[in-house]
Amino acid sequence: MIDHIRLSDDEKSVIILDQTRLPNGTEYLELSEPYEMYEAIRLLRVRGAPAIGIFAGFALYCLARKYESLPYPQFLKRLEEDAEYLKSSRPTAVNLPWAIKRMTSAAERQKSMDGMLEALRAEAQAILDEDIAMCKAISEHGLSLLKDGDGVLTHCNAGPLATSRYGTALGPLLLGRERGMNFRVFADETRPLLQGARLTAYELHKAGVDVTLICDNMASMVMKKGWVQFCFVGCDRVAANGDTANKIGTSGVAILARHYGIPFYVLGPSSTIDISCPCGEQIEIELREPGEIREKWYAEPMAPEGVKCYNPAFDVTDHSLISGIITEKGICRPPYTESLAALFV
Amino acid sequence: MIDHIRLSDDEKSVIILDQTRLPNGTEYLELSEPYEMYEAIRLLRVRGAPAIGIFAGFALYCLARKYESLPYPQFLKRLEEDAEYLKSSRPTAVNLPWAIKRMTSAAERQKSMDGMLEALRAEAQAILDEDIAMCKAISEHGLSLLKDGDGVLTHCNAGPLATSRYGTALGPLLLGRERGMNFRVFADETRPLLQGARLTAYELHKAGVDVTLICDNMASMVMKKGWVQFCFVGCDRVAANGDTANKIGTSGVAILARHYGIPFYVLGPSSTIDISCPCGEQIEIELREPGEIREKWYAEPMAPEGVKCYNPAFDVTDHSLISGIITEKGICRPPYTESLAALFV
Repeated sequence: MIDHIRLSDDEKSVIILDQTRLPNGTEYLELSEPYEMYEAIRLLRVRGAPAIGIFAGFALYCLARKYESLPYPQFLKRLEEDAEYLKSSRPTAVNLPWAIKRMTSAAERQKSMDGMLEALRAEAQAILDEDIAMCKAISEHGLSLLKDGDGVLTHCNAGPLATSRYGTALGPLLLGRERGMNFRVFADETRPLLQGARLTAYELHKAGVDVTLICDNMASMVMKKGWVQFCFVGCDRVAANGDTANKIGTSGVAILARHYGIPFYVLGPSSTIDISCPCGEQIEIELREPGEIREKWYAEPMAPEGVKCYNPAFDVTDHSLISGIITEKGICRPPYTESLAALFV
Repeated sequence: MIDHIRLSDDEKSVIILDQTRLPNGTEYLELSEPYEMYEAIRLLRVRGAPAIGIFAGFALYCLARKYESLPYPQFLKRLEEDAEYLKSSRPTAVNLPWAIKRMTSAAERQKSMDGMLEALRAEAQAILDEDIAMCKAISEHGLSLLKDGDGVLTHCNAGPLATSRYGTALGPLLLGRERGMNFRVFADETRPLLQGARLTAYELHKAGVDVTLICDNMASMVMKKGWVQFCFVGCDRVAANGDTANKIGTSGVAILARHYGIPFYVLGPSSTIDISCPCGEQIEIELREPGEIREKWYAEPMAPEGVKCYNPAFDVTDHSLISGIITEKGICRPPYTESLAALFV
């Protein structure tokens, strides 16, 4: 397993594996300033909804150390300013505000500077430890659906790099592989940022899983050939009715899966479920730079200058297209308004 | 209009615009040897089913000039050898064997070397002239469906560069634009070879059509937003029952269109209809190099070394997903077994 988010030895900075450099370079970045941390999220150096939450926890702990000598009220004000700033780096994933809220709540619970840093460090560590446990549990629940030799199609990257260990959508495949099972995985390359090609293919190939990379527009053909028994995808925010925001293109995969009669599952920790959000229309979708479509990765621009590009980072998959939502607590089935609410009782 | 396939002044070679260099370079290649012509098709320097047919016609004429001093039987044998060789460059589009058959039949009809070159030149010119007339007629029929302000989504490139003038899928948009109509076009970039980004966006932008480039996996979101009233795509081979082979990803677009209740039309000359082919399962699908997915266009490889890639160049859209097939003769509606057969009575 790759230790891709960790504290530096002096605990003044967070060290991350720069995911934008994969698969060609494994470069680690040491981040200690708020701006560097904000940029790491915004530029997808660290990405994947749970991983962003884990990173934000350790980041706030490191920042807190900078002003630990301040009196409690000023300390809290500074921490909350940094928290707001980091939160504004990306709008869609719920794990970012969720993790940040845990950190600021931990600070507020402290009521004075006594034991403050220890409390924050413990909270950040807890976010990580819980994610590891959640991913393991999600993987077990997902694996219960699969049998040896199954074909699984996945979109974007919801593996260890997007989380802590195992991952969510890739978790059942990695866990099954550890137990000697064989799957045939199809990884959508996931334009424009190619998380499927760069990260999913990398993680699965490294783990010895039989993975075939395809362009996003080949999913229909692969399904039609009967090579796919399940679709497993991650999630960035799940509304109370089961509508799921995930990487752009996920809704298309779900529609294809429905057409071909293939079960489509969403996998993620329960922290990704935003029970306060009634349905997908309420989820803000991040729009990113046109340059990601026209220029990024290329030796030269691949579309004429001045052509408009539309570049949403996520889309919302309608709950009616989802066979099940797998969290650490088990598999939720429709109607999701009931099964998801039951997770939070 | 871009004159992208033409004879050189001495008529010993075919000059083509190298489509692999667009949109950054407009480079013309002069091709006189069979191998160069074969490679031009194989490497997609000239591409688009009708354009390949036009090119093959002129190519065979130029090659024929090389051995015009041979006696008739030897001449015919050489010509048929070159014809077979060119035909083997790509397997899926029916226009290539169709155009080549027209050329060899024209040679056979001649029965001696008298007037042979004139006959071959006339046949090649006829293939081009007929394509121009067909594209114009297809454009008129397609345009009859549209009203000012409509949103149209297209996949790959079926514009002038893929044909002669106007194009097929882009024809109604270019013809409508000439008449002062405005459309909002969404061009799928069309991985892995990016014909949508490099060619469709280029052609439409140049013609003053409002075009927005999207990644293939964004089509679902754009349709969900209500921005698309029609899908227009080209075709490489249409079976007798209406099953349509076109650029990989077309079947996915058709499934999304069906899901969102958007009419999905296939546009192409009747020469693209292979009435001898009963259904899509009989259409051979070209598999291309993994490197096109993993490396092509990029400054460095975007997937780890050794990862398998599956790279079909086309897929087959089931006839049940197609609202109409538009040829130069009008709009065929289901049941296609009847409406397509009627074109050939």
